[in-house]
Amino acid sequence: MSENKIPYKIYLSENEIPKKWYNLRADMKNKPAPLLNPGTGQPLTAEEMSGIFCEELVKQELDNDTKYVDIPQEIQDFYKMYRPAPLVRAYCLEKALGTPAKIYYKFEGNNTSGSHKLNSAIAQAYYAKNQGLKGVTTETGAGQWGTALSMACAYLGLDCKVYMVKVSYEQKPFRREVMRTYGAEVTPSPSMTTDVGKKLLAEYPDTTGSLGCAISEAVEVAVKNPGYRYVLGSVLNQVLLHQSVIGLETKAALDKYGVEPDIIIGCAGGGSNLGGLIAPFMGEKLRGEKDYRIIAVEPASCPSFTRGTFAYDFCDTGMICPLAKMYTLGSSFIPSANHAGGLRFHGMSSILSQLYHDGYMEATSVEQNDVFEAAEQFARVEGILPAPESSHAIRVAIDEALKCKETGEEKTIVFGLTGTGYFDLVAYEKFNNGEMTDVIPTDEDIAASVAKLPKVPGQE
Amino acid sequence: MSENKIPYKIYLSENEIPKKWYNLRADMKNKPAPLLNPGTGQPLTAEEMSGIFCEELVKQELDNDTKYVDIPQEIQDFYKMYRPAPLVRAYCLEKALGTPAKIYYKFEGNNTSGSHKLNSAIAQAYYAKNQGLKGVTTETGAGQWGTALSMACAYLGLDCKVYMVKVSYEQKPFRREVMRTYGAEVTPSPSMTTDVGKKLLAEYPDTTGSLGCAISEAVEVAVKNPGYRYVLGSVLNQVLLHQSVIGLETKAALDKYGVEPDIIIGCAGGGSNLGGLIAPFMGEKLRGEKDYRIIAVEPASCPSFTRGTFAYDFCDTGMICPLAKMYTLGSSFIPSANHAGGLRFHGMSSILSQLYHDGYMEATSVEQNDVFEAAEQFARVEGILPAPESSHAIRVAIDEALKCKETGEEKTIVFGLTGTGYFDLVAYEKFNNGEMTDVIPTDEDIAASVAKLPKVPGQE
Repeated sequence: MSENKIPYKIYLSENEIPKKWYNLRADMKNKPAPLLNPGTGQPLTAEEMSGIFCEELVKQELDNDTKYVDIPQEIQDFYKMYRPAPLVRAYCLEKALGTPAKIYYKFEGNNTSGSHKLNSAIAQAYYAKNQGLKGVTTETGAGQWGTALSMACAYLGLDCKVYMVKVSYEQKPFRREVMRTYGAEVTPSPSMTTDVGKKLLAEYPDTTGSLGCAISEAVEVAVKNPGYRYVLGSVLNQVLLHQSVIGLETKAALDKYGVEPDIIIGCAGGGSNLGGLIAPFMGEKLRGEKDYRIIAVEPASCPSFTRGTFAYDFCDTGMICPLAKMYTLGSSFIPSANHAGGLRFHGMSSILSQLYHDGYMEATSVEQNDVFEAAEQFARVEGILPAPESSHAIRVAIDEALKCKETGEEKTIVFGLTGTGYFDLVAYEKFNNGEMTDVIPTDEDIAASVAKLPKVPGQE
Repeated sequence: MSENKIPYKIYLSENEIPKKWYNLRADMKNKPAPLLNPGTGQPLTAEEMSGIFCEELVKQELDNDTKYVDIPQEIQDFYKMYRPAPLVRAYCLEKALGTPAKIYYKFEGNNTSGSHKLNSAIAQAYYAKNQGLKGVTTETGAGQWGTALSMACAYLGLDCKVYMVKVSYEQKPFRREVMRTYGAEVTPSPSMTTDVGKKLLAEYPDTTGSLGCAISEAVEVAVKNPGYRYVLGSVLNQVLLHQSVIGLETKAALDKYGVEPDIIIGCAGGGSNLGGLIAPFMGEKLRGEKDYRIIAVEPASCPSFTRGTFAYDFCDTGMICPLAKMYTLGSSFIPSANHAGGLRFHGMSSILSQLYHDGYMEATSVEQNDVFEAAEQFARVEGILPAPESSHAIRVAIDEALKCKETGEEKTIVFGLTGTGYFDLVAYEKFNNGEMTDVIPTDEDIAASVAKLPKVPGQE
């Protein structure tokens, strides 16, 4: 089919929604390093994990071999409510840029949670329900993950307890109310409902909380309450498995029109979106069938890939969670305020870290003002108001398209538009008023937190 | 095709997006009454209108005869960015209700403006641009129309001046920032930029504004500035013409699966959504080809159809705009605070008013708590967080489906889901906290404002 026949939006039909997730690890020669028990320094066993995660998810977390995992029918049915997600040809953006490049984006914001997080939320909630559990606990900062999980739990009739960082709970009341509308119990963290919360409040009564503390509270509640487990929206192998639905649909839509991308771009916080988007393409690259440039984009204020260290580290700032081998700025690294709240994690998915380490992908970092400039340009011509996180990918997609304008190359660029910015208008207001700032960590800042990496065998 | 093959979402292909709007007036035996010049009491001429509206829109406003109007290619291209809008089979809601009814909804919230308003905004902006104008002016209350117009103007490179009711400007900063991100100049009304604003501020320095005053300011600026015209998001015949794209797509999607609705339900403020949704179905009914139950749903706090009078009245509370014959509560009627800001207009489209008067449709009113109860139930099972306006239609769709449950009838119900509730979380918060109230006007309230209807020939 000729390229000019490509519609603005490529929608797959419902029966083309993937029926299996793709497990990228099966094609990796160098598997991601296992999670370690922080007490023993030994790989975490399925049994140790099963007190925190539900059984099926433990299996998925540890399974480096099964290439395709069946998506249960109930999850497929839920996917039908908001999937397939459109792959959009950015004709208007191309025209505005005057570039010969062909730009596509996979839009994952077409659902009430406003982001791709729902793809894994429904999977994790389903397995919990299927195991006969009463409910799940989680933490949320910016609120996208908490919203997605609340929606999934409402659909399945599962109890949902969300620990929301207190400063977000107070400053982002709208996100909180979406979660409550979906029936979730939302508690500002730190709270008096957990030992860890009580201890922290006794010590720092005025604290506005942190993601690390909220994780600790959510884990404590899951472990202490029979019938509950803890769930997490990024970083983990299981999450990247579920998010492979993004990339599988993207590839199916491109294949339908015989289009092959040259460059694939995604924003990277914990890696859930990027890992999902690139999965089938990276698979081809790992198997030596195809070559693609794959670019991870992170904020300059939290540059795990571009300035971090590949090492074992804690996943949480509270240092109670397992150790993961990843590109990390150190679990004590505190990024300056950045409006892309979903990109403020100090570490990165172990899978993506290994791939980056092995040279299969690039990474770059961008500053906040440049990101919002791209966001505004994109919004005005493509209509969609993008999330700040997604706008990191937009920035680099525009930059690559402008390079094509200089060289005259007709490259095909695909990027992930992970979500919408309806709950990020405070950030847009700052940008509109010319008051947007950014703080880039110094080498000393990063060296200081990296110096505190935990000691494990082989890493002294 | 058998009914069980119907997907969750029926997406038309891009080449099935309507290429012509349908002008319902062509099929009406009793045409809607013309707008009158408030000074002379005579029908407004094209010349009188052309100082306020651009030429092509004046033609559309006055054209009661042309059945199909070509949609210019540029507008078709813009439509492709967010249309076709999905027609969703509400399988999950049907299951939750345990009803044998088949429920469908046309979802118009899949764009950044969050509502169907964009369908007419792009048309009005296009004709202004095509006439060589510099820009357009408008007013906005809740902000949906202003957002839609800002998006359309950004796309076309047209200047956009929005007068936003001061209380909304201050209490809904997020809507304001979306408009600013799209490059609109947003001014809180009343302002010192117009004579009418200055006069009002001199008299009432502490006023928080009203839609009537914002209309007056927007009209004044359009009239006084060469190269500017005024645009409006509802009530007018031209708006219903553009919004027919909703109904045409809905009908095409249903026809594709051989489905005929028994009941069609839409919320009604000024009539833009309802008039668009029902257009082709009402056409069949007017031509005697088919019969459908068509139900307009309005808030009990602002019941133009169900408790208003069919008479000539001012369209604005400032009484400077033309007179329209419509179901009205009187232009001095001030509805109590209602979170469905888009349903607080004292009058109603002249087209819909005539059809209601002639017995072609029903109307009903619902209270705010019942509306949010339906909204919550819908959100939890169907995933989408609905706008309060749209939730009026959801309430009645659910009620009709529950009647089917009692009688065992397998009726097919179609309703319009006009938009999303991301900017209405203050309302959801009140509902979540059990603090939602409603104020229904007394008969005396309505009689008092209806007594002030203007005197025109034949209406004493």
